[in-house]
Amino acid sequence: MPAFTRLTPLITSLPSTVPFVGPEAIERQMGKPLAARLGANESGFGPAPSVIEAIGKAALDTWKYTDPENFELKEALAAHLGCKADNIAVGEGVDSILGMIVRMVVEPGTPVINSFGGYPTFNYHVAGFGGKLVTVPYENDRENPAALLEAARRENAPLLYFANPDNPMGSWRSADEVEAFAKAVPEETLLVLDEAYIECAPADAAPSIASLIDRPNVIRTRTFSKAYGLAGARVGYAIGTPETIRTFDKIRNHFGMARISVAAALAALKDQAYLQEVLGKIAISKARIGEITRANGLTPLPSATNFVAVDCGRDGDYARAIVNGLGAHGVFIRMPGVAPLNRCIRISAGVESDMAKLEEALPQVLKSL
Amino acid sequence: MPAFTRLTPLITSLPSTVPFVGPEAIERQMGKPLAARLGANESGFGPAPSVIEAIGKAALDTWKYTDPENFELKEALAAHLGCKADNIAVGEGVDSILGMIVRMVVEPGTPVINSFGGYPTFNYHVAGFGGKLVTVPYENDRENPAALLEAARRENAPLLYFANPDNPMGSWRSADEVEAFAKAVPEETLLVLDEAYIECAPADAAPSIASLIDRPNVIRTRTFSKAYGLAGARVGYAIGTPETIRTFDKIRNHFGMARISVAAALAALKDQAYLQEVLGKIAISKARIGEITRANGLTPLPSATNFVAVDCGRDGDYARAIVNGLGAHGVFIRMPGVAPLNRCIRISAGVESDMAKLEEALPQVLKSL
Repeated sequence: MPAFTRLTPLITSLPSTVPFVGPEAIERQMGKPLAARLGANESGFGPAPSVIEAIGKAALDTWKYTDPENFELKEALAAHLGCKADNIAVGEGVDSILGMIVRMVVEPGTPVINSFGGYPTFNYHVAGFGGKLVTVPYENDRENPAALLEAARRENAPLLYFANPDNPMGSWRSADEVEAFAKAVPEETLLVLDEAYIECAPADAAPSIASLIDRPNVIRTRTFSKAYGLAGARVGYAIGTPETIRTFDKIRNHFGMARISVAAALAALKDQAYLQEVLGKIAISKARIGEITRANGLTPLPSATNFVAVDCGRDGDYARAIVNGLGAHGVFIRMPGVAPLNRCIRISAGVESDMAKLEEALPQVLKSL
Repeated sequence: MPAFTRLTPLITSLPSTVPFVGPEAIERQMGKPLAARLGANESGFGPAPSVIEAIGKAALDTWKYTDPENFELKEALAAHLGCKADNIAVGEGVDSILGMIVRMVVEPGTPVINSFGGYPTFNYHVAGFGGKLVTVPYENDRENPAALLEAARRENAPLLYFANPDNPMGSWRSADEVEAFAKAVPEETLLVLDEAYIECAPADAAPSIASLIDRPNVIRTRTFSKAYGLAGARVGYAIGTPETIRTFDKIRNHFGMARISVAAALAALKDQAYLQEVLGKIAISKARIGEITRANGLTPLPSATNFVAVDCGRDGDYARAIVNGLGAHGVFIRMPGVAPLNRCIRISAGVESDMAKLEEALPQVLKSL
């Protein structure tokens, strides 16, 4: 039986897809739970005990819709960041925010710039609104601001995506470089500066909030999914000028935020001591990933995120075989999708028991190839 | 300072809005908590204790993204409904699902049919994708299937919205009427049959799942927000043919569901005894609303939902004055937006202490007008 026959031509042209295979699908396929979940850059250190407590309290109120203005969370974020509440829009994770940004700017045929191998979910949204993706190669495993700028100008593109720190490579640019880049973006081009991993980055990798807050063509995106350990809660936010931020009110799902998630995010933001504790654990785990992979003849790349991209020294097929081999041992990791990045595997920081599984499985996998 | 200057013409044309003022905004304005929250058709009876327990358990896993296939919830819903998992798409509340459906079908200028005074958030999405809303009057406070059909044919509209039971009036059509209507919808028109309140309706108000499951041009939407008491969790679902349902995979936010929310929905679905208990409480509360409003010279309308539309016997200004007057007493209710429905106020079922507040405030408000 066919689907409903009168979908828009654009929707008809799109593939039905699940962009990433979830670890649960792997578990269903294997018929048993994963031993180590290190593929989605979640935080196995979990949210703070204070957050768990806040969730318990909020549970009783989950019969209520969430405040559609997200007043309290925006106020708390503004105080934390040193900006105003009307500089902030809250959304159901950065993925949802990226979808809205693409919708604001992209019509069928609109050119959009991303790095070749950059965040696939952004590209998914671009395709979903009919945009024409134009990509720029990484430069030594880092996104290339000069080439991205050149492409944006050449294509007269109204939308440009740049992640700092970068996923999937874990690389980063200095605050000065990022600030200069953002200020050089033509005012007819909207820059999405995705800072999903910014809490994990060196202090000098993030331009100050003040430095870009007055630019109508810059939206910075951040999330509680990574360092704060709340990937399952779906709380992301966008930072920009009040006028640009107000555009979200035109199209967002005003009652879309989960009430418990917002309570969890508020508690997480309050507990900066726990965040620091987790950042310490992430650093230790990244060092462990470095040791383990180096001991097996692989080359961990520098990382400003909660994961490590590891150069396996050969092609994408070889890296894929390692990903699959680790998967068969119950160690879930992922890898970049395109060459030359796909000579790497990508391993999330995690608790020591997960690191031990990795340490045990990796040499066996490499030996078997 | 202006917003980013190169938004699409459609986005530029849209208003920045919060479609409904949230009760939290009223509380901020009044500087104190509401006494009774009876305006958003939430369930003040709350979710089941078993659901609260499930939330507590799931809290520890909230560092993990949710299974992007929503496998477990779709399986459970399929077993509950007597269909297959691939007949079901899960989304972040019905509002989000409606947005996706509109996006599937609507381009600028596309005619879309709704009742005049029907669900505003559906209309918000139609406007958001540039659709041309064509409305059909209610017929004695019920949506008018024959006139909706006629409009769909006349306009050659690819999208038609019908709620059963209806919001904001609480009215309904019999299963036979709805089934005949759905089957008469031209195959070039997608019918959204919104059954958000179906658990509260008489048994003979819902066509069987089997009766419409083979129709590519029918999508039924349901939710955990109303009778199940999980409005803040944002879990809705769509029921249709596998092919039509697969369309959601083209555009949905695959990792958009909150993990705790999915766990809560699974637990809620399992606890049908609690649902029955709540349905009993809703019936009692609706009877109370009937008594209270009749005692004050108003006319409660029959309701198949968890709220009662109450005819105040005069115009929209009068009903608005009652809504505002109750608000000043801390009793939050809402009302339909357009004539002639706006001669009514809409009061959600709630716990007895909320009913007592209503009983206390209403005569004072009416006297003051």
